[in-house]
Amino acid sequence: MLTNDKLAEWDRESFFHPSTHLAQFARGEAAQRIVTGGEGVFIQDRDGTRLLDGFAGLYCVNVGYGRKEIAEAIADQARELSYYHAYAGHGSEASITLAKMVMDRAPKGMARVYFGLGGSDANETNIKLVWYYNNILGRPEKKKIISRWRGYHGSGLMTGSLTGLELFHKKFDLPLAQVIHTEAPYYYRRPQLDMSEADFVAHCVEQLEALIAREGADTIAAFIGEPVLGTGGIVPPPAGYWPAIQKVLDRHDILLISDEVVTGFGRLGTMFGSDHYGMKPDLITSAKGLTSAYAPLSASIVGQRMWDVLMQGTDENGVIGHGWTYSAHPIGAAAGIANLKLIDELGLVKNAGETGNYFWQTMREALGDHPNVGEVRGEGMLCAVELVAEKEKRQFFDASEGKGAKVVAAMLKRGVIARAMPQGDILGFAPPLCLTRAEADQIVSVTRDSVAEVLG
Amino acid sequence: MLTNDKLAEWDRESFFHPSTHLAQFARGEAAQRIVTGGEGVFIQDRDGTRLLDGFAGLYCVNVGYGRKEIAEAIADQARELSYYHAYAGHGSEASITLAKMVMDRAPKGMARVYFGLGGSDANETNIKLVWYYNNILGRPEKKKIISRWRGYHGSGLMTGSLTGLELFHKKFDLPLAQVIHTEAPYYYRRPQLDMSEADFVAHCVEQLEALIAREGADTIAAFIGEPVLGTGGIVPPPAGYWPAIQKVLDRHDILLISDEVVTGFGRLGTMFGSDHYGMKPDLITSAKGLTSAYAPLSASIVGQRMWDVLMQGTDENGVIGHGWTYSAHPIGAAAGIANLKLIDELGLVKNAGETGNYFWQTMREALGDHPNVGEVRGEGMLCAVELVAEKEKRQFFDASEGKGAKVVAAMLKRGVIARAMPQGDILGFAPPLCLTRAEADQIVSVTRDSVAEVLG
Ligand SMILES: Cc1ncc(COP(=O)(O)O)c(C=O)c1O
Ligand SMILES: Cc1ncc(COP(=O)(O)O)c(C=O)c1O
Repeated sequence: MLTNDKLAEWDRESFFHPSTHLAQFARGEAAQRIVTGGEGVFIQDRDGTRLLDGFAGLYCVNVGYGRKEIAEAIADQARELSYYHAYAGHGSEASITLAKMVMDRAPKGMARVYFGLGGSDANETNIKLVWYYNNILGRPEKKKIISRWRGYHGSGLMTGSLTGLELFHKKFDLPLAQVIHTEAPYYYRRPQLDMSEADFVAHCVEQLEALIAREGADTIAAFIGEPVLGTGGIVPPPAGYWPAIQKVLDRHDILLISDEVVTGFGRLGTMFGSDHYGMKPDLITSAKGLTSAYAPLSASIVGQRMWDVLMQGTDENGVIGHGWTYSAHPIGAAAGIANLKLIDELGLVKNAGETGNYFWQTMREALGDHPNVGEVRGEGMLCAVELVAEKEKRQFFDASEGKGAKVVAAMLKRGVIARAMPQGDILGFAPPLCLTRAEADQIVSVTRDSVAEVLG
Repeated sequence: MLTNDKLAEWDRESFFHPSTHLAQFARGEAAQRIVTGGEGVFIQDRDGTRLLDGFAGLYCVNVGYGRKEIAEAIADQARELSYYHAYAGHGSEASITLAKMVMDRAPKGMARVYFGLGGSDANETNIKLVWYYNNILGRPEKKKIISRWRGYHGSGLMTGSLTGLELFHKKFDLPLAQVIHTEAPYYYRRPQLDMSEADFVAHCVEQLEALIAREGADTIAAFIGEPVLGTGGIVPPPAGYWPAIQKVLDRHDILLISDEVVTGFGRLGTMFGSDHYGMKPDLITSAKGLTSAYAPLSASIVGQRMWDVLMQGTDENGVIGHGWTYSAHPIGAAAGIANLKLIDELGLVKNAGETGNYFWQTMREALGDHPNVGEVRGEGMLCAVELVAEKEKRQFFDASEGKGAKVVAAMLKRGVIARAMPQGDILGFAPPLCLTRAEADQIVSVTRDSVAEVLG
C-alpha cells in the first residue's frame, strides 16, 4: 500500500533503528529488510523473500502472523474508540475486560493488573512499586534490587541496569548503583565442570546468601528473574533452582518479581512460568505474549501482599503518582482480548508444551553429537544450541570469530530465522506457539545443514 | 461490543488505574467512567453521557475523536502486517514512511528519528543517548541533567526524576542523584511581585548560571525543558527566556533536549515549539501529537551533532545496546502517517494558532477580572486559569481546600472536561486542535459559570 521506490533510501537517511550498527547502516553496509506481511510462522519481505520465523519476531508473535481475528478486533476498536486515558478511574470496555481475563489466568495470589506498553516500562513500574511499598512500610533503606548476570529485563536506565549483559551496560554508565547482580543459573557454564546440577544449585544459593550478607538484608527490596533466562542465552534453570531461591528470599523478606515477558501466556506449555516452576511472585511482568505483539501492551500483575500496601499508601498519601498517557490503551487491550481468546481456541499453550518439546528434543537428536555443539537445551517452545570450540573441555570460541552469527546467516540463506544471542555463540529459537512438527523439522534440518556449512 | 453487566465490578476488582486513589477506587468511593466512543471534541461514556473534552484525553487526541481516516489506516495495517521488529536494520513500509514524514516536519539540523511507545520512554532514550554521547567523546564526568521545577517529562524512575513535581517524587525516592533542578520559568509565580518579565528572565538565567557554577559545567551533560511548561501549570515562557537560556547552554557545551510531547506537531500553532521559540535542540522528544493517541508511538528526533557521535560510537563499539521490542511498531506508524496527513489536510496547525488564540483570549476576557482569577494565560491551543484567594497580594488558596478540583467537578456537571493541574489551583485546557469558535465559547461559558458556582 505504501510501497514506493524511495523507501530504501528514506530508511538509510531518516530511521534510527534499535540494536543496529548505526554507522554501517547509514553507509549502506549493514543489511536492511523491509517486512511487508506474514502468515502463520512465515514472514515475507518487500523483495518477495519468504522466511520461517524461528524467533517469532522477538519471541513475541506467539499466535503467529496474519491472524484475522486479532486484526479485526483492532479494526473494530479503532472505529469504536481508539483512545481514552485510564487515569483517575477511567477505562474502556476493552481494557476492563482484558484486566479480568488476565486475572483469571494469573497464578494464585495476584490482586490487580496495571497496563503499560512494553516489557521495559512494566519493569520500571514494578521497581517504582517496590520502592513505594517499602516506603509505606517505613523501611526506607530496603531498596536495592538483586538481578542475575545474563538476565534481560529491558533497555531503559533502570531496566537496562537490571539486565545483566555487557552490551546494555557498556558506554551507558550502567548498572545504576541500586542494582546488584548475582550468579546466573546457567548450569552449562558452571564454574567447575565436575559440579552436579544439585551442587550448582547449592552454589547459586550460596552466592545469593553471600551477597545478601554482604549488603545487608535490610537494604535489599526485591529479586528479579526470568523463569527461564531468555536473551542471556535461553537457559532453563537447573532442577530445584526456584524453590531453593524462593526459600532464601522468604527468609530475608525480599520480594520476588517474576519477569514473564517471554514466558507469560503460554510459551513454556503452561500459562505462566511462575506456576511451571513453583515460584511465588509478588509481581509478574508480562508483555509480548499478552497481545502477541499485534499492538503494544504490557501488564504488571500485582500480588495481594503488595496491593494491600499500595492501598494503604494511597489512603495515607492520596493519588499514586504513576502513569503513562498510553496506560491501558484500548487498541492494545482489544488486541489482548482477541489474542488470549485465540490462544485458548487453538490450544496453543498445550501445543507450546507438546510441539515445543518435540522441537528441541529433535534438535538435540540432530545436533547433540556434533563436536562443536556443547549443549542443546529447551523448555516448551524455547530452544538453544550452544556452540563450542572444544566439547570435552567446554572451550568456547573467541567472540571475535562470530561463529553464532555466521551460523544464523547461513540459516537465513536457507530461509529460516534464528537469533544469535548477544553474549556467547548461542543459536536461539522461540518460534510462534502454533509451530507444527513439520515446521519444527524444517528448522532442525536447516540448523544442522548450516552448522555443517560453518563448522564442518 | 463488549458491553456487559459486570464491567463496573471487574473494573473495581481487577484494574490498577494510573494516577488514581487505589484504595478509594477499590472500595467504590472514587469515580469510575467507562468511555465508549467519541466524535470531534466530544466523548461519550457507557451511561450515555456526552462530554466536551477540553483536555483532548491527556492533551493528546489532537485531531479529535472518531477520525475514520486513522481508524482505517490502523485496520489496513493490522490486516497487512501488525508487527515485525525494527532491530538490526529491519523496518516496515509504514515505519520508514513515517520516519521520512517526521524528518520533513522537524526543525532544521535534525538527523534521525528513533521510535518508541510513549513520552516517558522517549525521554529515557534521550538520556541514554546523552550519556553515550559524552562517553564516546571521552567526557565520562559530564553526565548530570538539569531539569526545571514544575517540568513534566514522564513517570519512570529517570523520567519521573526529570519531572519537577512533588506528586511524582514523594514516596518513590526521586529524583535520582543524576538530576538537578533549576527555577521554573513561571512569571506569575516570580519570587518578587515587582519583578518585570525581563527581570525575571535575568533571574532564571542567574539561577541557572549559579547552578552550573556550583556543580561544574564539566559535570553537566544536558538541559531538558518543555517549550511551554505543561503539567506543571500550562505556562508559556516569559519573553526572551529561551534565547537567554540557549546562550548559557552554548557557552557551557550543554546539550538541549526539547520535550515536545505536548507541543510537537501543532499545538502551539507551529509544527514544533522549538521553532516557535527559537530553541536549537540536540534532541526533541515527541509522542502524543505524533499519532493523536490513536496508537502508542513516540519519537526521539536526534540532531546532527549528536548523530555524528552516535555513528562514531558504533564504529568504535559495534551495535548500540538500546531497543524496545515495540520500537517503530507498524500499527503506531500507520496511525502516525494518517494523523500527520490529516493535520495537513484539515489545516490543524493553523487552527491551533487561530482558534487557540481566540479561545484563551476569550477566556481572559470572560474571567480575567474575577477576584479569584489571578491570571488567564495561553499559547496556541493551550490555556490555563490560575485561581487565587486574593488577587492583589497574589495569595494562593490552601491546597487542602481543593478549589481547582472543585471547579473542574462543577464543569463536569455542565458537560465539559477540564483538568485540575496537580500542583496549584490551576484549571488546564488543551482541547483537540480542531476546536471551533462555538466550542471554545462553550468551554469559556461553562468555566465562567463553574467558577461563579464555587467561588462566587
Ligand atoms: C524477559 C524480558 N523482560 C523485559 C523485556 C523488555 O521488553 P520490551 O522490549 O518490550 O521493553 C524483554 C524483551 O525482550 C524480555 O525478554
Ligand atoms: C512534556 C511531556 N513529556 C513526557 C510525557 C510523558 O509521556 P507518557 O505519558 O506518554 O509517558 C508527558 C506526558 O504528559 C509530557 O507532557
